[in-house]
Amino acid sequence: MTSTPEDEPGDTEFSLETYRREGLISPPGAEPAAHDGTGRVQLSFTVEDKEAPATQRTVRVPPGVSVFDSASWNGIAIDSTCGGHGTCHKCKVRVSPVTPVTRHDARTFSPAELDVGWRLACLVQATRDHDVVVPPLVTRPKAATVGVGRQVILRPAVQKRYVELTEPTLEDQRSDLARLLDAIDDLEPVPDLHALRRLPKVLREADFKVTAVIVDEALVDVEPGDTTATRYAIAFDLGTTTVVATLLDLVTGTPVGVASMLNKQQPFGADVISRISATMLDPAALGRLQVAASQTLATLAEQVCREGGVDPAQVYEAALAGNATMTALLLGIDPEPLGVAPFVQTTATPPAVLASEVGLELHPGARLALFPALGAYVGGDIVAGMLATGMDRDKRVRLFIDVGTNCEIVLSDGERILSTAAPAGPAFEGGAIRCGMRAADGAIEVVKLGDDVELGVIGDVEPRGLCGSGLVDAVAELVKAGLLDATGRFATDEVAKEIAPTLADRLTYIGQERVFVLHRERPDSDPAESVVLSQRDVRELQFAKAAISTGWTLLMEQLGLEHGDLQQVLLAGSFGSYLSAASAVRIGLVPQLPVLRIVAAGNVAGEGAKMALLSIRERAGALALLEEVTYVELSDRPDFNDRFVDLLAFPT
Amino acid sequence: MTSTPEDEPGDTEFSLETYRREGLISPPGAEPAAHDGTGRVQLSFTVEDKEAPATQRTVRVPPGVSVFDSASWNGIAIDSTCGGHGTCHKCKVRVSPVTPVTRHDARTFSPAELDVGWRLACLVQATRDHDVVVPPLVTRPKAATVGVGRQVILRPAVQKRYVELTEPTLEDQRSDLARLLDAIDDLEPVPDLHALRRLPKVLREADFKVTAVIVDEALVDVEPGDTTATRYAIAFDLGTTTVVATLLDLVTGTPVGVASMLNKQQPFGADVISRISATMLDPAALGRLQVAASQTLATLAEQVCREGGVDPAQVYEAALAGNATMTALLLGIDPEPLGVAPFVQTTATPPAVLASEVGLELHPGARLALFPALGAYVGGDIVAGMLATGMDRDKRVRLFIDVGTNCEIVLSDGERILSTAAPAGPAFEGGAIRCGMRAADGAIEVVKLGDDVELGVIGDVEPRGLCGSGLVDAVAELVKAGLLDATGRFATDEVAKEIAPTLADRLTYIGQERVFVLHRERPDSDPAESVVLSQRDVRELQFAKAAISTGWTLLMEQLGLEHGDLQQVLLAGSFGSYLSAASAVRIGLVPQLPVLRIVAAGNVAGEGAKMALLSIRERAGALALLEEVTYVELSDRPDFNDRFVDLLAFPT
Repeated sequence: MTSTPEDEPGDTEFSLETYRREGLISPPGAEPAAHDGTGRVQLSFTVEDKEAPATQRTVRVPPGVSVFDSASWNGIAIDSTCGGHGTCHKCKVRVSPVTPVTRHDARTFSPAELDVGWRLACLVQATRDHDVVVPPLVTRPKAATVGVGRQVILRPAVQKRYVELTEPTLEDQRSDLARLLDAIDDLEPVPDLHALRRLPKVLREADFKVTAVIVDEALVDVEPGDTTATRYAIAFDLGTTTVVATLLDLVTGTPVGVASMLNKQQPFGADVISRISATMLDPAALGRLQVAASQTLATLAEQVCREGGVDPAQVYEAALAGNATMTALLLGIDPEPLGVAPFVQTTATPPAVLASEVGLELHPGARLALFPALGAYVGGDIVAGMLATGMDRDKRVRLFIDVGTNCEIVLSDGERILSTAAPAGPAFEGGAIRCGMRAADGAIEVVKLGDDVELGVIGDVEPRGLCGSGLVDAVAELVKAGLLDATGRFATDEVAKEIAPTLADRLTYIGQERVFVLHRERPDSDPAESVVLSQRDVRELQFAKAAISTGWTLLMEQLGLEHGDLQQVLLAGSFGSYLSAASAVRIGLVPQLPVLRIVAAGNVAGEGAKMALLSIRERAGALALLEEVTYVELSDRPDFNDRFVDLLAFPT
Repeated sequence: MTSTPEDEPGDTEFSLETYRREGLISPPGAEPAAHDGTGRVQLSFTVEDKEAPATQRTVRVPPGVSVFDSASWNGIAIDSTCGGHGTCHKCKVRVSPVTPVTRHDARTFSPAELDVGWRLACLVQATRDHDVVVPPLVTRPKAATVGVGRQVILRPAVQKRYVELTEPTLEDQRSDLARLLDAIDDLEPVPDLHALRRLPKVLREADFKVTAVIVDEALVDVEPGDTTATRYAIAFDLGTTTVVATLLDLVTGTPVGVASMLNKQQPFGADVISRISATMLDPAALGRLQVAASQTLATLAEQVCREGGVDPAQVYEAALAGNATMTALLLGIDPEPLGVAPFVQTTATPPAVLASEVGLELHPGARLALFPALGAYVGGDIVAGMLATGMDRDKRVRLFIDVGTNCEIVLSDGERILSTAAPAGPAFEGGAIRCGMRAADGAIEVVKLGDDVELGVIGDVEPRGLCGSGLVDAVAELVKAGLLDATGRFATDEVAKEIAPTLADRLTYIGQERVFVLHRERPDSDPAESVVLSQRDVRELQFAKAAISTGWTLLMEQLGLEHGDLQQVLLAGSFGSYLSAASAVRIGLVPQLPVLRIVAAGNVAGEGAKMALLSIRERAGALALLEEVTYVELSDRPDFNDRFVDLLAFPT
């Protein structure tokens, strides 16, 4: 991760709606306190520690938020095993002034304790300023750093509880399930039929010493003995091109296996539109695309389990971030309405399904959680990316761009968040480019022009073509050298000889078309057999970058922002990670900013999927984004074409 | 249904715990009002009517219960489509004194309306005495009479909503699901994957005029056009011997098809113990028993659908009442712990499953709701029976007896409810009886002794044997005639000739054993070729009836009740329906009471299953019974054998 002076975490103050959507105004059904959601209340935390002096920390939150959540979102740990659902009775704090006593408080504390302000933090709604004393932690919560510097306190949906039960007698004929659940004081899962079928046998064979396996609200299994040390989950980034799987050890929060491969849907077309078209032309294609996606995931799941030395039956959950089309195809949902105006999804919030329903052979009760989507072209991958980059948690003015055939753009001014999609076309993936190719061995990925041409080539082999980052570099360097003018036209031979005499002979023609030779075997090689950038390639790139910059320009106008207001630009996706920030600025793909403000964010979709597996609170945060982020449809904007034409030129 | 002077409905006052278990203290998570659950508050309802003068009605309920529930349980209808879940905003009433304003109230009423006490009845907790004005009903709720005179207001888990949606545009890109659910204001279902897959196609083919099909919390389908008039469900009574299916039209609450057949598990044994034994002897038997049960249900489902002229795909739900063993076997759960001490169930509350998971080919999203059980031998069939007979709603002192190989007994003194099971053995089903047979053609079901023997025979054919009710009649009549003494011994020839000269020649011997000839072709027929009652048969019956009467005797002792305190005895099950009340009293199978207090209740298990389909509130009531009813285990009671020996004799 590139670290820049601007890369400090922002404030984490955020809106009441965030909390409400995340179900964090607990308990559900309770009447809200008398406030209108505006303003803030102040909580002054005194955090005690067994081995160190207490520390002080003051936070401001919207009225009505629970003390537990206020602490949690501000990185103040309070004991809890239920994650703030009012069931574990462990999140004890002392509040002043005292707040009403709930029935859970009455069960947890003595009258004397209640008098001095002891309460369960998850049930105290902060409706005014409070002092809160947090006692020393009984168990230090584990945390993991994921995404763009996000610190996540581990609270996976997958939970295990080891219990040693008393055996039934004629005096104690509780059912096997009641006996098990009575011994688990902080969770109230509903059993899967599979778990019920295993329960009587496993209990008796294991002398009533068993481990309950819970995923979210479901009891998915009982295992003999103590298996709490083995809990795994797989995060999938289901890209149109590349699919990545990460096997996570949920006990430690660390990855134990990573694998990636091309999406097996490739034969149906390179981009989402061609795959949607395939389903419109052939009624059998949807089924075949579904199988192809399933097989891709299954192959990767097998690989990461092998790599991690993990039995697939110990993988109890998976999370998947994919764009709306990939998600629909995986679920066997007709994607046609995504592909034609007015571009409508079947659902923005696909329900969790059994992993087996999409062909994954993990634990039979394993669930697959799917990221929600903002729109047909700002899908679950982008929501995951927003989660990983903390787009809603950070008060800085930030622009998030995922560059690809379909380019997704998110802009936050610290209060409001807008998103849109721009159809950039295939140029960045080497499509429609004369010598274009994917970022694979032999692809030119870096271009520097000085007295001569310096190339960076993937795999250190003879250059075979030009990938997206090389294309951007080449154009940017040619603009800088004056060999391309602001309108995107190559210089004449005369001008070239004058301003760049050592490069001028590379400007030549293939047939009628002007080209710049990037790589040739010998100076006298036939340009048609060399790696060149053609006039038409430059036009393709101009169209692509104009589509993207029109997107962020319109969003910035909507929020009244100038380029200089942006504190950070995040370039997401694998392409974004390889792009030269300086080149991106030079061609106008990103706003005109100091390059230190432009950060490659990496595979943020995969990171978001990991966060969802590590923390149910982060998962709720993804859902909250659907309310917080406004989706802006560009395709019917009357000002789109004007801006687009303006932005075809390179910045001068 | 036999109507008796005692058969008036009792009070419907019941405990706070009832409400709490049924989730009726709404909203969940809300803090309870300041009360300790004792005492009652009084609600004075003024029920307005468009066409008639308003009526007055006063009810007393535990503090904390919602006004809506207080009304509903007392038969006062208030408009509602969500069933009191706070979502439909239709249950408008005027309360005085006024109560706090919830956010739902604030959205529903104007400030002026709030000032004069308008509130949503489901959100008003009655914590003190109130006057409540109920405005005239907008829609008159439909009700059906089921069970033992129970009037059920129709609110099935299966709901349909016809909607005409606006088509999506670039200005309105809501997802298909959001568009659909936004148009349904009173329910918030989660979609099945099947429904999601159908959604985009059905919406567009039906010009966005569709019917949403909801089962409980799940959106199971969308259907083109308006299909609200077709909603069906099947109630199953899965007996060890006989299985009954009733197809219900959920729109009218009426049955449209009924079918019954023998349980296909019969080859594995006649009673639950032999079927459990089968699974212990052969590991493959569980699977085969599961298939046999599934096939039985599937065959009946097909029959009732054919009879009712209903497409199975229009059946969206099924409910099943069965004993604990039948339920376990159907779900493929090992029944062994049910069959051996300490007699433990895997779960008392089996989760709803997809009907397809038990082999039923109904609508692909159809659910099967399973009745909860009180214990290994007081199963879901009895809970269903208690629901159908209103055991928890009726303030009378009542005894419920389901006579069978395993006999279940429930006793209520109007406050407390106890239940137990008594192992009666197979005598009542004709097992272990010399001329015993099932209640089928040729079975003697009625016996009267006067100067001669009068027989009632099933099917009006030549008598072939003796079924349970005939057995009880025969013994009772012989006791009455003095031909059997109180200890169960046949009279000597001398005594017989003296007290019953016209019958004495029927008292004879087969080998060494004393028999009474019930039916012979001619007076000189060989007794061994006639239908007789043997001394050993009498002993079998004595053991069976002593087991049962020990059960209710111990329960009555526990509640401090005498025979005369009982206001009603309900005889459940098909056998109970045919039993002569007078004979049952005479042999001591039931307490010594006027016969008018003894009521044949019919197939109450099946009736309970129907109620669960017609009303989600009744279904919640079944679950509440688990908390309200105390299960008494008799097998380890030191006083059991003493009582049993005492009760072998016939009452004198």
